[in-house]
Amino acid sequence: MHRGKARAYTNIALIKYWGKKNEELILPMNNSLSLTLDAFYTETEVIFSEELTEDRFYLDEQLQEQNATKKISKFLDIARKKANTDLKATVISQNFVPTAAGLASSASGLAALAGACNEALHLELDDQALSRLARRGSGSACRSIFGGFAEWEKGSDDLSSYATQVPSDHFEDELAMVFVLINDQKKDVSSRDGMRRTVETSSFYQGWLDSVETDLCELKQAIQTKDFQKLGETMERNGLKMHGTTLAAKPPFTYWSADSLKAMQTVRDLRTSGIPCYFTMDAGPNVKVLVEKKNQTAVQAAFTELFSRQQVISAHAGPGITIIE
Amino acid sequence: MHRGKARAYTNIALIKYWGKKNEELILPMNNSLSLTLDAFYTETEVIFSEELTEDRFYLDEQLQEQNATKKISKFLDIARKKANTDLKATVISQNFVPTAAGLASSASGLAALAGACNEALHLELDDQALSRLARRGSGSACRSIFGGFAEWEKGSDDLSSYATQVPSDHFEDELAMVFVLINDQKKDVSSRDGMRRTVETSSFYQGWLDSVETDLCELKQAIQTKDFQKLGETMERNGLKMHGTTLAAKPPFTYWSADSLKAMQTVRDLRTSGIPCYFTMDAGPNVKVLVEKKNQTAVQAAFTELFSRQQVISAHAGPGITIIE
Repeated sequence: MHRGKARAYTNIALIKYWGKKNEELILPMNNSLSLTLDAFYTETEVIFSEELTEDRFYLDEQLQEQNATKKISKFLDIARKKANTDLKATVISQNFVPTAAGLASSASGLAALAGACNEALHLELDDQALSRLARRGSGSACRSIFGGFAEWEKGSDDLSSYATQVPSDHFEDELAMVFVLINDQKKDVSSRDGMRRTVETSSFYQGWLDSVETDLCELKQAIQTKDFQKLGETMERNGLKMHGTTLAAKPPFTYWSADSLKAMQTVRDLRTSGIPCYFTMDAGPNVKVLVEKKNQTAVQAAFTELFSRQQVISAHAGPGITIIE
Repeated sequence: MHRGKARAYTNIALIKYWGKKNEELILPMNNSLSLTLDAFYTETEVIFSEELTEDRFYLDEQLQEQNATKKISKFLDIARKKANTDLKATVISQNFVPTAAGLASSASGLAALAGACNEALHLELDDQALSRLARRGSGSACRSIFGGFAEWEKGSDDLSSYATQVPSDHFEDELAMVFVLINDQKKDVSSRDGMRRTVETSSFYQGWLDSVETDLCELKQAIQTKDFQKLGETMERNGLKMHGTTLAAKPPFTYWSADSLKAMQTVRDLRTSGIPCYFTMDAGPNVKVLVEKKNQTAVQAAFTELFSRQQVISAHAGPGITIIE
């Protein structure tokens, strides 16, 4: 029996991962850059055992059905191949998320699973190799290997596509992210389907690719010079652009709901009133607001006036993956 | 003394005019196609007289200040040049709009003024020449010379840029447009400034230009075959794309407010419930819903449940410019 357990934190992209070059290997069309956060994480234990005849996957103490287990098995196969074993495994995963608001991210989940496999099968992968392994499970998981800022270098093949830590001289310790959780009735387009449709049909996708390099460059400059305004403006601009690409897809779609717009407007109003803060959004209606710690309370207060207390959750920069003994 | 008076109706673009190639002559970057509507119009009288020492402009019975008058004078200069006169004029303009909800359009206003000048100065311009003249006042005004569907051929110079009637075998008589008027606190980016910023800075603008021709082609096919679903889908797609371009401008901006999103979602919900209707938006938060007359009541009812009765106004296809004796 081989056991391993790891905890990984979710990350939010400031420069978005949007589009795959290779669906099988999960190679992205562009570099992305994220901030790992302390408030949302996954703990995953994996136990490879000769007594098992098939993989079993427990998420939040519920045995999962075939489809979810199949995805996990596909990932375990990659780890098993590295270890030259065909032992089946039990995977026990728990998401630590303040509310059940759909923030359980595949990023923290697959990063934790990669870490647990590394431990259980004695793969002895370094961070770079672990990031590559996590990437095979879920693209953005490759960034959750690292704490603070991480950049996913798109690369050109399995070997060259992985995340690295972005030097920041502890700039991330000055930052907070306020999550505004928005319930949405409408049926969501998954991140995977949304990016595929956009790459294949959006007349804006080339414009996205042409400009993301500049955004990334400016954002890294902002980290280097600890320029919060530049960091926020670049992040907000890049996020809006990602969401703009979906409007030119065929058929067009949007992840925004009325409450998302309300939250965006609140951010703009806060700025007008002298509190610098900036928003970003991913493949869903939630709005994430980047703010300096010193202004976190003011931002939270503005949002709890408009949304319920349970909808407003704050996070700070989180650590990289950790092994749990 | 030379008098002339005309009435022109506003038009809503189904394929959007978005971006100028030449700001002075108002030559657009792409062709556009509109539907003229009966509910919103402007009546304008112009009186050229030797007794005047400067132009005067009354809008809705209010004498206008220098800035507004200057724009009118600039347009009058073009008409005066055609007539070889330098007589100053009094312009008396009245907007007929169900509520004062910011729908008074420069399209109907400048088209009516062009028609009044044509009459007063005996310019004897035909529709094409009148459309060119109206264009000099406000780009979209060139389409309001015509009733029903009108296409603005972008052309390449002052002579070749004008609107023409789109043959439709009375398809427009089957249609209605429900206006959802949305009040917005935020300071608007004018249509003029918005398109300029987009042309100059948006990494999506080329994608807009590359795809608008196909949208136009499909929309004209839809008119020809009286295919309402195709008409609506193409219009909605083109409008969303126009609004997508603003998200990649530097700095990015949007004309959407939370209520705009609510209205869009209502349109999607109506479609799901079996009522075909489609939305489009211009440089502001209002949402315009295209529907067949037979479903107009159902669409109005859905919106008056969410918005006040004064915010929901219905229109049908309107006539071209008319001279008032």
